[in-house]
Amino acid sequence: MPHIVVLLGSTRHGRASEGVARYITAQLQILGASVTLVDALEILKNHPLTETDIPAWMEIASRADGFVVVSPEYNHGYPGAVKMVLDGAYDEYEKKPVGFVGVSSGPFGGIRAIEQLRQVCVELGLVAVHEQMLFGFAKKAVAPDGTLLELTHQPRMEIFGKALLNWVERLTNYKIN
Amino acid sequence: MPHIVVLLGSTRHGRASEGVARYITAQLQILGASVTLVDALEILKNHPLTETDIPAWMEIASRADGFVVVSPEYNHGYPGAVKMVLDGAYDEYEKKPVGFVGVSSGPFGGIRAIEQLRQVCVELGLVAVHEQMLFGFAKKAVAPDGTLLELTHQPRMEIFGKALLNWVERLTNYKIN
Amino acid sequence: MPHIVVLLGSTRHGRASEGVARYITAQLQILGASVTLVDALEILKNHPLTETDIPAWMEIASRADGFVVVSPEYNHGYPGAVKMVLDGAYDEYEKKPVGFVGVSSGPFGGIRAIEQLRQVCVELGLVAVHEQMLFGFAKKAVAPDGTLLELTHQPRMEIFGKALLNWVERLTNYKIN
Amino acid sequence: MPHIVVLLGSTRHGRASEGVARYITAQLQILGASVTLVDALEILKNHPLTETDIPAWMEIASRADGFVVVSPEYNHGYPGAVKMVLDGAYDEYEKKPVGFVGVSSGPFGGIRAIEQLRQVCVELGLVAVHEQMLFGFAKKAVAPDGTLLELTHQPRMEIFGKALLNWVERLTNYKIN
Repeated sequence: MPHIVVLLGSTRHGRASEGVARYITAQLQILGASVTLVDALEILKNHPLTETDIPAWMEIASRADGFVVVSPEYNHGYPGAVKMVLDGAYDEYEKKPVGFVGVSSGPFGGIRAIEQLRQVCVELGLVAVHEQMLFGFAKKAVAPDGTLLELTHQPRMEIFGKALLNWVERLTNYKIN
Repeated sequence: MPHIVVLLGSTRHGRASEGVARYITAQLQILGASVTLVDALEILKNHPLTETDIPAWMEIASRADGFVVVSPEYNHGYPGAVKMVLDGAYDEYEKKPVGFVGVSSGPFGGIRAIEQLRQVCVELGLVAVHEQMLFGFAKKAVAPDGTLLELTHQPRMEIFGKALLNWVERLTNYKIN
Repeated sequence: MPHIVVLLGSTRHGRASEGVARYITAQLQILGASVTLVDALEILKNHPLTETDIPAWMEIASRADGFVVVSPEYNHGYPGAVKMVLDGAYDEYEKKPVGFVGVSSGPFGGIRAIEQLRQVCVELGLVAVHEQMLFGFAKKAVAPDGTLLELTHQPRMEIFGKALLNWVERLTNYKIN
Repeated sequence: MPHIVVLLGSTRHGRASEGVARYITAQLQILGASVTLVDALEILKNHPLTETDIPAWMEIASRADGFVVVSPEYNHGYPGAVKMVLDGAYDEYEKKPVGFVGVSSGPFGGIRAIEQLRQVCVELGLVAVHEQMLFGFAKKAVAPDGTLLELTHQPRMEIFGKALLNWVERLTNYKIN
């Protein structure tokens, strides 16, 4: 069974990304993956700004077969918190796929944060999956508990999830049931 | 007298950016500016990850006529710490110039972090100054106390500093003596 | 009277950008500017691929006080034709403002092409205007003759046009009536 | 035997990229690949600017198992010619690897063009290979006939070529002898 780490990349009060990350997690489980939802807030709360490596994240990342990064967009870029977590490991990413899920309160679903993250992820040795998901007006699209409210996202979710798991299989020779 | 805020964007142990930021600060003072050197580590140490606004930074930024961001490059992007500080204000940047200074241990001087930061800074309402400085092999280029060791940077520093102050004058009608 | 060059950046058959560029042109005229609409297809049709400079474009650009680039997005980047035209001049751009107008057949209005173009334009010495316009589903938004069909763009157009002309005034000391 | 297409992305008189592309081509052959060197100037000379698809390039790309894009950097972005060629196909790229080789007359080897191209290539369905090559001061590094003058590039070339061919093997199950 392939193991996916979903990184919840917002640490802000009232974050819409939390519901989105829960939805993604549940859907990937339905598609046959074992999934760990990791909260950037938890990862960073004991991480000194003076340090680079984040051992807790390295441990989590080393066990992943693939990643999903759920990220809001702040001022046309990625949040500092997402980048701090990603910068906290390196070898653990080698030749694993990563899919991006963008989140925004406005209409564009974090699309520009994803573009900048793709540049970062190539350097991290990750394979950026072509398919992506964008949750504009995210609080209306997904409830905080992960319930999908805007049902038009569901078919896209299946395409995205299957593309990610197909990449895991391709790169690790896991067989998805 | 124009007032420039120099943001030291690395928070890591042994950061080469600190010497570079000290050098930039001293040089801008020689060129006739009042300069405040701001350490991202100080700004962030009491900033909860759950909050967006950083009142201490907003106060500092509101008094600036222009900015210099001294930033290393991590994995082809900007450090999380730099982005957290920049995201901590907004209106305070409106129509002020920002110059970028890249820092790296390798040969490329943080050039890709600057490119991503320029996208962010347009959205922040800042004017991205064309001229930039790149300190590759930064520990050999500048001592921790800000002494320039690699003297070839000096002529470029004058071009960079004057370009920034010219933008401040253009946008605020300050007269540089 | 300030002089604005609007670059129509698509050269493809059936281009939606043409109607958008006509609309932008007419609106900037209403706001008090003299406007030249320049078609990338015309600029490039006699330009050998072996040459860098494009004298016809250099002549046009040298007389501009500011620019608008109307650009579609192809595969998350800018069209080759837009880049060829922009690369055909250099000194002619120095400290002039540029506003971006994105065009797409889908919902995102060319937003990612604009982000890449902003990186280019800083290097060209242009000042990237913060405000932008995005025409998603562009053929439904503007008719080929420039008539606005999707009226919700009108208030944004006024903000965009005034911001651009305000930058022209700021940088050239023209007075807009 | 894996088949690699090397795209020579400069079309300008006196292009340094030509020698670099010849060097890359010969080295990939030594590593066991069949290689076609494709000149963007040839591809584009009969391509009308009004058309999107480039049938000649689609035919070439469909037969490739992997790609190398040799690209200069113009004004911090990719050349229009490179983008026009890449935009001329789509399905032909699906899940094939692409390696980037940057070329510049200055010290940075086209590094920023590569970053923008990686964003484009993810959308094209290509897998961006982590390893890259940068030829700063390119005319001193490689002769027009492809002879390597700056021998320090040789070890990097082997790493780059093997990484690309390893990706081809991984994605196509070709066995490299």
